[in-house]
Amino acid sequence: MNKHLRLAREVVVVGAGMSPFGVFPEKDSKDLFVEAFQDMLASVDKGFDPDDIQALYLGNFSNDFFVHQAHWGPIISDAVGLIPKPATRTEGACASSALAFREGVLAIASGLYDLVLVGGVEVMSQRSTEEVAEGLALATVPYEGQVGFTFPGVFGVTASAYFHKYGAGRQHLMDVTIKSHLNGKLNPKAQYQATLAEMMEAKRQKALAKGAPAPQWADEKAFLGDPQANPMVAWPLHLFDCCPISDGAACVLLAPAGIARNFTDHPLYVAGMGQGSGRGLHAKKDLTSFEATQAAAAEAYAMSGLEPGDVQVCEVHDCFSIAEIIHLEDLGFFPPGHGYRAVAEGKTRRDGIKPINTSGGLKCKGHPVGATGVSQVVEIWHQLRGEAGERQVPMQGLRVGATHNLGGTGGTCTFTIFERR
Amino acid sequence: MNKHLRLAREVVVVGAGMSPFGVFPEKDSKDLFVEAFQDMLASVDKGFDPDDIQALYLGNFSNDFFVHQAHWGPIISDAVGLIPKPATRTEGACASSALAFREGVLAIASGLYDLVLVGGVEVMSQRSTEEVAEGLALATVPYEGQVGFTFPGVFGVTASAYFHKYGAGRQHLMDVTIKSHLNGKLNPKAQYQATLAEMMEAKRQKALAKGAPAPQWADEKAFLGDPQANPMVAWPLHLFDCCPISDGAACVLLAPAGIARNFTDHPLYVAGMGQGSGRGLHAKKDLTSFEATQAAAAEAYAMSGLEPGDVQVCEVHDCFSIAEIIHLEDLGFFPPGHGYRAVAEGKTRRDGIKPINTSGGLKCKGHPVGATGVSQVVEIWHQLRGEAGERQVPMQGLRVGATHNLGGTGGTCTFTIFERR
Repeated sequence: MNKHLRLAREVVVVGAGMSPFGVFPEKDSKDLFVEAFQDMLASVDKGFDPDDIQALYLGNFSNDFFVHQAHWGPIISDAVGLIPKPATRTEGACASSALAFREGVLAIASGLYDLVLVGGVEVMSQRSTEEVAEGLALATVPYEGQVGFTFPGVFGVTASAYFHKYGAGRQHLMDVTIKSHLNGKLNPKAQYQATLAEMMEAKRQKALAKGAPAPQWADEKAFLGDPQANPMVAWPLHLFDCCPISDGAACVLLAPAGIARNFTDHPLYVAGMGQGSGRGLHAKKDLTSFEATQAAAAEAYAMSGLEPGDVQVCEVHDCFSIAEIIHLEDLGFFPPGHGYRAVAEGKTRRDGIKPINTSGGLKCKGHPVGATGVSQVVEIWHQLRGEAGERQVPMQGLRVGATHNLGGTGGTCTFTIFERR
Repeated sequence: MNKHLRLAREVVVVGAGMSPFGVFPEKDSKDLFVEAFQDMLASVDKGFDPDDIQALYLGNFSNDFFVHQAHWGPIISDAVGLIPKPATRTEGACASSALAFREGVLAIASGLYDLVLVGGVEVMSQRSTEEVAEGLALATVPYEGQVGFTFPGVFGVTASAYFHKYGAGRQHLMDVTIKSHLNGKLNPKAQYQATLAEMMEAKRQKALAKGAPAPQWADEKAFLGDPQANPMVAWPLHLFDCCPISDGAACVLLAPAGIARNFTDHPLYVAGMGQGSGRGLHAKKDLTSFEATQAAAAEAYAMSGLEPGDVQVCEVHDCFSIAEIIHLEDLGFFPPGHGYRAVAEGKTRRDGIKPINTSGGLKCKGHPVGATGVSQVVEIWHQLRGEAGERQVPMQGLRVGATHNLGGTGGTCTFTIFERR
């Protein structure tokens, strides 16, 4: 029994869009998805008739919990006029819409459909921070949640183990955060569109306006090291190591390669995709690695015939700063223990040799969990088409990008490689 | 843009199993799924190495709500030893595992995998009846839930509209219930393994044992008409019109037709499958029909080249007795307004011309919502292989069966046609 790792038909992305990510108390999931859908419609170079869409795959983690409504497939389908066509919700925690993407690809590869809408949505901000923590704990593996681990708790332990094993420290997590904000600043859809330097200055001005003693920090790391400005969440993770609570939606349009030119002269090929599953902390052989990421990466590289060095730009699942560092290693971009050094040396900056999270990542773009996986594809779509505006990667011959989406504390992972041909 | 309605590879079922359905306070979702998995392993005629399974698709409605844990793909994957292989949860309310089945078929048809495990699980009995009603309301469409409709409420309105339009009455709903119990009696995995006559007698004996006045009913319909024995839930639906609250799991093993003989000389072909989506009560053109069922049926018939008359035995989604009657019409088995007459005439009994729900259906087999879709496939597997024991359909040349799974109040529907070749 061998994996073929070859699809019966090649699949391409022919359109991509997203709503702004942020906190939108006045919008529900339908509102946000319709915004993403309209953004996607506008992205299809040669236009098309939305009535031609044949099925919807929708990622959503747990609007069950967040807004007390499940069964979003037909609801979103109705919102964008697709009833009575098939609509399937997938759930893999924070990787929910990456799973939807994968099923959309398989539905087309199988020969059943020619035009599939894939998206994701989540509305989290209607709950308090404490409730969101409780909701996200639904996605840990049972043993973790039952013994009281929250998400930051699991990743805090992970960071401590990484520090211990490789001699890294908090200052290396700060490098990730500083870079994320530099990119988020340039993304008009991001939840946080400010550099840390700007946030420092804003905080200073606010204090001055109140007549309070105005804080002064030597640089971004001094700011991040100030427990008033950046309080502890779960040692060694502090507030700025954690992605925010967000609302948002994203979607892409998929077609078989054979008809791609009906939609655009610049289709994005799905060159390879992989998915893996993992256990929790209790069963990990190595706290500084994610078995689901390694399995997903191996499958995607094998399918694409590409290697880590071929990936020129990548969206990586930075739910916490430490996660970004470890994934850089699990994806093969840098050797184990070298991820934090690569970040410190600027290699993952927009103008580095391996630009990571040009969108601002989960940290700054925001992380409406069910929408994140597809929103990563939206970013790579823009980058590989050279349409990423101010945050465009300044790389010659930009052709291969990838998206990495992690669900829960490592239970689910996907890695997808895209190629402009 | 046309649907191909043809898969790149034909897909077959080569194994099928389920846990008993019922109320099992001592078992969790992992326990139940492992029971289903072991039952499936034993069903594979020529045996196989479970390590050869390449991916899992798992249907679950909302263990999020019922047991406060989401992200079941990797958890169940771990329980049956599949880590780090891909595991994807699908959710379409009560059709959640029918969606998993569909994705399993597409994954194989796409060429990516050769051996896929598809299952479903739900644990509902840890919540009170009131809480389960609240949980199921997560699957209504927003307008229904927001104005206070529960599931029985929506189907009560549906029954009233059907009665009004076609002149049917409560006695016709009773025909469905009586038949369900006759079948459930013969299913050793069913939650209720008793005919109504037996339940009447048991109730009488219980009263006698207590020294209370022993009730006496002329026949089953007199029993069902007694508001003490069969209290009202949502007019005109009474307790015995409603499926119970259940725990359970089911799974099947899928392979491409090309290698099916490695596993069995009696593979079950997926001849056609369809999926549809629907709106809620507020948007229905006709309260006595489900647009999602009609869409799913049209797609499945077109793909299979078969017609309603070709389906010899069918599992139909009888969440409420009225639902079974209406689906018989929407699936084309009987003309609109004739479903209730067909049931009254015994046409849907095990020895009738169109045996329906030989398993006992959701009413008697039980309805752990996330497991139901795949458990329907398990029943058709047994029937078409002539291995359904006492409840085997006594039909010559039995070759074609089907499963119909409805999610929510009609939001999602699947219809799948199986053929023994």
